[in-house]
Amino acid sequence: MGVVLNLDEGKRDGATIARLMSLTGADMGRVNELILSKAGSDVDMIPEVANHLISSGGKRLRPMLTLAAAQMFGYVGDGHVKLATSVEFMHTATLLHDDVVDESDLRRGKKTARMIWGNQASVLVGDFLLGQAFRMMVDVGSLEALDILSTAASIIAEGEVMQLAAANNLETTEDEHFAVIKAKTAALFSAAAEVGPVIAGASKTDKAALRSYGVNLGLAFQLIDDALDYGGSAQELGKNVGDDFREGKVTLPVILAYRRGSAEERKFWKGAIEEHQSDDAALDKAIGLIKKHGAIADTIARARHFGEIARDALGPLPATPQKAALIEVIDFCISRVN
Amino acid sequence: MGVVLNLDEGKRDGATIARLMSLTGADMGRVNELILSKAGSDVDMIPEVANHLISSGGKRLRPMLTLAAAQMFGYVGDGHVKLATSVEFMHTATLLHDDVVDESDLRRGKKTARMIWGNQASVLVGDFLLGQAFRMMVDVGSLEALDILSTAASIIAEGEVMQLAAANNLETTEDEHFAVIKAKTAALFSAAAEVGPVIAGASKTDKAALRSYGVNLGLAFQLIDDALDYGGSAQELGKNVGDDFREGKVTLPVILAYRRGSAEERKFWKGAIEEHQSDDAALDKAIGLIKKHGAIADTIARARHFGEIARDALGPLPATPQKAALIEVIDFCISRVN
Repeated sequence: MGVVLNLDEGKRDGATIARLMSLTGADMGRVNELILSKAGSDVDMIPEVANHLISSGGKRLRPMLTLAAAQMFGYVGDGHVKLATSVEFMHTATLLHDDVVDESDLRRGKKTARMIWGNQASVLVGDFLLGQAFRMMVDVGSLEALDILSTAASIIAEGEVMQLAAANNLETTEDEHFAVIKAKTAALFSAAAEVGPVIAGASKTDKAALRSYGVNLGLAFQLIDDALDYGGSAQELGKNVGDDFREGKVTLPVILAYRRGSAEERKFWKGAIEEHQSDDAALDKAIGLIKKHGAIADTIARARHFGEIARDALGPLPATPQKAALIEVIDFCISRVN
Repeated sequence: MGVVLNLDEGKRDGATIARLMSLTGADMGRVNELILSKAGSDVDMIPEVANHLISSGGKRLRPMLTLAAAQMFGYVGDGHVKLATSVEFMHTATLLHDDVVDESDLRRGKKTARMIWGNQASVLVGDFLLGQAFRMMVDVGSLEALDILSTAASIIAEGEVMQLAAANNLETTEDEHFAVIKAKTAALFSAAAEVGPVIAGASKTDKAALRSYGVNLGLAFQLIDDALDYGGSAQELGKNVGDDFREGKVTLPVILAYRRGSAEERKFWKGAIEEHQSDDAALDKAIGLIKKHGAIADTIARARHFGEIARDALGPLPATPQKAALIEVIDFCISRVN
């Protein structure tokens, strides 16, 4: 696969989500039970497809955000467990549909559900999980949390369509790209974080703080994901390096390299992204150009920018173990580029 | 396309939904405005795809059920308009995803959205409409209506997966088939009818009556749809005669003809449904066998059975124009076979 970038510049040593995992461990046990139970059905194909993806070793970062954010404001009850499970189901449904839309073969290092059970099952089981997510939210009974999460569901789909419409368009500006990832990725991080203070009955200011933390964390997370697609190895990534390139996705490293490139380089990008001349040799060349123009380093710099906004969003909140854990998550997300 | 059955046996003369349309006309004007507004987005592809299907001349039977059922119990407000629009969006989202799952080329006599904008857009715009449906429900603020409609969303998807898993399986029993259509079709009719009395604050008995009416009407509706696939013309149907046959769908006419057939006939069905030997000559033969065994007449008889249960479900309710209109709908659904 050729050139592998040294991305050490993005790493803060030892950043982990250990503190978050420890704080939410007991609650996550209940989330995991609820996931299994609510993905169940007498129709065998449903738990088979759902569990294939659910058990594939995702970090379950989003539900942990909901749990920690609810704990942070002293929430007592089991509503946060149900909302966290809803958030994870919304995410899983999106992944099932994404893999159909992107025609992906691999996800987290395993065959995608659509490769095993077909596109049809992936579409329909995604719909089922989305329905189950809404049922759990309704069960919690907070209209405010329902509003936030149902709005996120619309915005995520809108972001995916924006991405589809912008596919292969190298003239996409950085701002337009931020609008896409804000909708398709950051909206769910934001909703996941905000519903914590919402069910805990926290103040408007506290809700706004967690919402701002979530959206900026989500932006940072997605930018690092996009950087990883041109570095790292398939094993770490759980996807193949160059997947985005081969699918003609216009992510930030490409946007920067294209805008900074010579006329000749832009011609190469046109062929690669718009006309799918994206074999391994082209990928090597793309990685070389991205390196030459510092496009990975600057993608990471943009991610850091959003990470700092996320950190400051939590600034006024009292020092709690949850606050410390949520700040560590920012460093962890950015240090995934290693 | 060969043999066309005379299906006059299923017709009650002059059955129309004129009364329902007249009673709900003003409210449907508001539903149609809300549909256009909530299918809107700055992302152009979303209204394009959504409106293609929305403007394709569906009868909008389901939202009219919600409106009439709310009127019936004296509802005052605009919640029924929002819930009716949600119901239509849930239906539209299902159609968009169904056409992807079934690889359909035509819907209501027009090219399907997936043939024009691709499977990807159909999946994602369906997701968007589902998100918008939930936002409108949340806006109405009735947790009971939310519970009913979100449960329906899960059950519909579950029914679609059941259908997928049972695809091409000629050993499907009539009961198993009823379970599939109850989930994939009747659940939404049931929810559409039940949320009317729910937002009107009607009694438990009244809610149960409308729920029972809806589920049985939905069963009758789907059975007649399945009968139409082996009769009628593409123009009336908005789909091609024989679509179900070519897709290897095991519907009630096929189940009955298979169970009543000779060993040789069952061999023909195996080849046609399981091995996709389903060209025009095979379709002619299938229609002949279905006719020979009275499978259309008996599919209509089953539909009438459910129609009678729907009628009796409304029995104890006071005579109102809405009640008369809902009863006419039963006759109309069954008389579509003409």
